[in-house]
Amino acid sequence: MADAAARPAAFVPADPNFEARVRDSFARQPFMEIMGAALGAISPGRVEVVLPFDAKVTQQHGFFHGGAMGAIADVAGGYAAFSLFPADATVLTVEYKINIMAPGKGERLVAAGEVLRSGRTLTVVRVDVHAEADGRRVHCATGTQTLIRLDGKSDGKA
Amino acid sequence: MADAAARPAAFVPADPNFEARVRDSFARQPFMEIMGAALGAISPGRVEVVLPFDAKVTQQHGFFHGGAMGAIADVAGGYAAFSLFPADATVLTVEYKINIMAPGKGERLVAAGEVLRSGRTLTVVRVDVHAEADGRRVHCATGTQTLIRLDGKSDGKA
Amino acid sequence: MADAAARPAAFVPADPNFEARVRDSFARQPFMEIMGAALGAISPGRVEVVLPFDAKVTQQHGFFHGGAMGAIADVAGGYAAFSLFPADATVLTVEYKINIMAPGKGERLVAAGEVLRSGRTLTVVRVDVHAEADGRRVHCATGTQTLIRLDGKSDGKA
Amino acid sequence: MADAAARPAAFVPADPNFEARVRDSFARQPFMEIMGAALGAISPGRVEVVLPFDAKVTQQHGFFHGGAMGAIADVAGGYAAFSLFPADATVLTVEYKINIMAPGKGERLVAAGEVLRSGRTLTVVRVDVHAEADGRRVHCATGTQTLIRLDGKSDGKA
Repeated sequence: MADAAARPAAFVPADPNFEARVRDSFARQPFMEIMGAALGAISPGRVEVVLPFDAKVTQQHGFFHGGAMGAIADVAGGYAAFSLFPADATVLTVEYKINIMAPGKGERLVAAGEVLRSGRTLTVVRVDVHAEADGRRVHCATGTQTLIRLDGKSDGKA
Repeated sequence: MADAAARPAAFVPADPNFEARVRDSFARQPFMEIMGAALGAISPGRVEVVLPFDAKVTQQHGFFHGGAMGAIADVAGGYAAFSLFPADATVLTVEYKINIMAPGKGERLVAAGEVLRSGRTLTVVRVDVHAEADGRRVHCATGTQTLIRLDGKSDGKA
Repeated sequence: MADAAARPAAFVPADPNFEARVRDSFARQPFMEIMGAALGAISPGRVEVVLPFDAKVTQQHGFFHGGAMGAIADVAGGYAAFSLFPADATVLTVEYKINIMAPGKGERLVAAGEVLRSGRTLTVVRVDVHAEADGRRVHCATGTQTLIRLDGKSDGKA
Repeated sequence: MADAAARPAAFVPADPNFEARVRDSFARQPFMEIMGAALGAISPGRVEVVLPFDAKVTQQHGFFHGGAMGAIADVAGGYAAFSLFPADATVLTVEYKINIMAPGKGERLVAAGEVLRSGRTLTVVRVDVHAEADGRRVHCATGTQTLIRLDGKSDGKA
């Protein structure tokens, strides 16, 4: 049975310059900078954010903080949506939900946002976070996110 | 990089008789019966519920009701979790979240619950609903669900 | 400190005829009819749906089915949003999340949807479900829901 | 009708020393420290986290970062649950869902977690975030969170 929502073929970015636009916007997020987060792989409708382990992003047990995990998941999902937008549009998170499945232990967290539905107004993204260490990865969080596209608004600082 | 949470190899049901246990429990759900829902494919950690189109499960625009979509997603996820439990345990839904990505239009809805994490107390499941018609399927809803295992409690009617 | 989002004063329905519009739309939902659900109190931005106990809306333990609980919560929230819309607009559920806090045991369930934010495009609603019996009520589910307003679309059957 | 889940009377902390335990644990969270977050009001089953505005917790438009908003909501909710636990138990977030209803603009964000259901294993918390400025407050985010209690585990660093 053909799947009308098959992902790979479905996503053609409205702006061929999408990767530069994602990198430029991410670089203007001070919160990501103080956390030490960086962009990973970027493709149309899929964006990764990588967070190396550092004491400053931990909680009281010495693991990655759940709030840090949620923050990079939110950002990865937001840019996954943004990567498909036209050049003159910006993105806002409407809501997100995340299940923490395992403690954030490891050398780095990798959050990946992957667009499931790209509509004119709303985008739905699946977000997954893996903790990596010693060549192994553990799926430590998963969730879904809804985002809204605002047309005619620069993503630049208001 | 090896993935410690790789699904297929991970799920060995605690009870080899899991499929009969799922079918028996489902058959005792009057709400599924009045909706006309039936079980589809069952494997360890993955269960489908199929809802054929019928006017009685529609909303005011004549499409599948979002509440009916949510109900079969909840049930598919619950039995996906239950399929991995020992014989003397039952399941309760802790919470679920669902994004409706497309209207429920078609000959049938197929909800699939797939376990992502199977813990001693809590199970996390991904649920997806597709609408099928004319040999095509549209991914119309996705979500995640948390379930709790209650040991030493028969799944039978209290 | 003044609360700019104080609820009571905030919600003036765009259509003074909102209650009739809610009742008319609800009456055209066959799924609510087969469940035996009815509307309860209606005010601008707040709508109740009442589900009397009946074997047909139960699960395998003889309590209200979680899917039935979710369905009336979704509908109560949808009409809470719809009650504030202009006459020529209809509503679609974008997503909802519900936590089941206690089993659905009692003579009836009462789901109440209450608008928290009413925007031009999106509405955010809090939904709560209480089980009532013998003059007592138990708060058995709570959640949030996002809805989208579609202008220029009749709520009538397509 | 009496409400069996009426909040105020319901919550008696298992440990009379709950406030000191919350403050001690919060002080051991490096991520909260680098964000500049602090505890606000604490009562049994209700905890506030306050985040003063600072460029380091902003996004590309110069407002509070949604990930920072989510992180303090997660922490406020976690300590609201923890405040009711016995002295030898710790808390883990199972999942949370948050709706962003307004941009995080203002002098400070105040996240409040409030327990709705306190069970032996699971706690359900409502979280709300307000942005405060010039003596006004805007309700900018709301959500629900599920937490699990781990008995016999010190909250101290592993």
